[in-house]
Amino acid sequence: MKIKPLSDRVVIEALEAEDKTSGGIYLPETAKEKPQMGKVVAAGAGRVTDAGETVKPEVKVGDKVLYGKYSGTDVTVDGKDYLIVRESDILAII
Amino acid sequence: MKIKPLSDRVVIEALEAEDKTSGGIYLPETAKEKPQMGKVVAAGAGRVTDAGETVKPEVKVGDKVLYGKYSGTDVTVDGKDYLIVRESDILAII
Amino acid sequence: MKIKPLSDRVVIEALEAEDKTSGGIYLPETAKEKPQMGKVVAAGAGRVTDAGETVKPEVKVGDKVLYGKYSGTDVTVDGKDYLIVRESDILAII
Amino acid sequence: MKIKPLSDRVVIEALEAEDKTSGGIYLPETAKEKPQMGKVVAAGAGRVTDAGETVKPEVKVGDKVLYGKYSGTDVTVDGKDYLIVRESDILAII
Amino acid sequence: MKIKPLSDRVVIEALEAEDKTSGGIYLPETAKEKPQMGKVVAAGAGRVTDAGETVKPEVKVGDKVLYGKYSGTDVTVDGKDYLIVRESDILAII
Amino acid sequence: MKIKPLSDRVVIEALEAEDKTSGGIYLPETAKEKPQMGKVVAAGAGRVTDAGETVKPEVKVGDKVLYGKYSGTDVTVDGKDYLIVRESDILAII
Amino acid sequence: MKIKPLSDRVVIEALEAEDKTSGGIYLPETAKEKPQMGKVVAAGAGRVTDAGETVKPEVKVGDKVLYGKYSGTDVTVDGKDYLIVRESDILAII
Repeated sequence: MKIKPLSDRVVIEALEAEDKTSGGIYLPETAKEKPQMGKVVAAGAGRVTDAGETVKPEVKVGDKVLYGKYSGTDVTVDGKDYLIVRESDILAII
Repeated sequence: MKIKPLSDRVVIEALEAEDKTSGGIYLPETAKEKPQMGKVVAAGAGRVTDAGETVKPEVKVGDKVLYGKYSGTDVTVDGKDYLIVRESDILAII
Repeated sequence: MKIKPLSDRVVIEALEAEDKTSGGIYLPETAKEKPQMGKVVAAGAGRVTDAGETVKPEVKVGDKVLYGKYSGTDVTVDGKDYLIVRESDILAII
Repeated sequence: MKIKPLSDRVVIEALEAEDKTSGGIYLPETAKEKPQMGKVVAAGAGRVTDAGETVKPEVKVGDKVLYGKYSGTDVTVDGKDYLIVRESDILAII
Repeated sequence: MKIKPLSDRVVIEALEAEDKTSGGIYLPETAKEKPQMGKVVAAGAGRVTDAGETVKPEVKVGDKVLYGKYSGTDVTVDGKDYLIVRESDILAII
Repeated sequence: MKIKPLSDRVVIEALEAEDKTSGGIYLPETAKEKPQMGKVVAAGAGRVTDAGETVKPEVKVGDKVLYGKYSGTDVTVDGKDYLIVRESDILAII
Repeated sequence: MKIKPLSDRVVIEALEAEDKTSGGIYLPETAKEKPQMGKVVAAGAGRVTDAGETVKPEVKVGDKVLYGKYSGTDVTVDGKDYLIVRESDILAII
């Protein structure tokens, strides 16, 4: 992966909603705010706090994650679409 | 449970309002802002403060909690509906 | 009391405005923002600051307090109505 | 005084504007935002900062103060009207 | 001076705009936001930061200062008009 | 380069979108918020946190970066157009 | 210079846009937000952070700087027009 996201940003490859994942996780059709499933392909070094501490990201490359559908910025690398989000837009590792 | 919520997020399974719980707790019908009852099924590691301190969640898996009805994001895992909220949306352990 | 409020939240039992309390304290009829009198029935462990310090609540169970009338969330426990507020919504111990 | 204000709150007894105070201080009739004169009858322990430090109030019981006219919450104790304000609403000790 | 301003507040006596001050400083007639010239007659002890540090004011009694025209609160002491502003409303010592 | 940006600002030379970069990175045509590609030509010393710590920029001169299209301020130096952005407007190094 | 700006304020003398400066720097005619060129004639001691640290300004008297055109407050000293801005309104030293 050639993209190195800055700060607490994470590059995500969106995953097609499957009928049934290996882990048996479905995403709701009618949720108030439908989260999206994706795979982490790159993660930044983490945000730096006011105290000068770097807070390392909780996610790592390869993690499958749920994130807010309307978060982040689209980008295309080598013909594939990715999304750059802040880690705070990621709800959970699944 | 296959979901690991990030930061101070908590995964909650909503509980049906019962006529009378074992603990005798009712939720009001006509409250200004009606809280919901639920069970914690997963909790994140906690938010990281500007000082670089991780604040562990006060709730733990299995706790019955009251939370704001319109908080969080719906998600479905193994055919069951859950809610991912921030711990600050949880009012109390009951 | 079966409710354990989180963070800096406090559970309050509203007190009927009496003609004259033992302490002789009246609440105004026509105030800009009329405070309510109540009794603390449960208090959280306190908020955690960015420095990772837990700020213990100033109020304790049994304290009679004044609080903003429109603060907090109603809840019913064992058939009795309570209010869950943040300690910052409490004006004074009386 | 039976009221113990919380945090950085202060209980003030409003003073009638006199023609001439002993200190010769007048309040303007036509000011943009007319401050009010009053006497401190109770003061809280002070606000707690994010660093966990308690900042003691600068005012003490008996001080005559100027404060914003539309600040705070009215309350009646033993038949007398008081005002509960935050210390930050107090402009000066006079 | 009988007024002791709280925190980072400063009491200012407005100076009449002169044709030419001893220091040769004019205030513009048509500026976007016209600053006012005045003399500091009292200064508070300074604001207390979240870390519990008191930040002493940079201005002292007697300083001539420029400040935002619409800042602060008018007050009259011994028949003279003053203005109470926060030090952050003061642009410069002249 | 004669410009020394202040704080966490970065001077960027916009790059023409190429059909195929050496790294094979394309920018999407129809993205919600289309990021721009550019080259860092100058970087500030970094922002200073409330704790007095200088947070050095992650980018350095020569880095190719993605940044928000509508960020920053245009400036012309020696007849060439540049953009001055805050480092937080830069999404990733590519 | 008789003006001592407070905190992180800086006094700037606007420079006429020249056809070609000695450093060959032009300012764009049609930029989204056109920066202005000027010379620093006075700088404050710097802002004080919540931790009680004084952050010294990066600019010094004599520096030529780019700043936001609509920033700050106009003032006239000895018949010359100046601008008082916060250092954060200054984009770069040129």
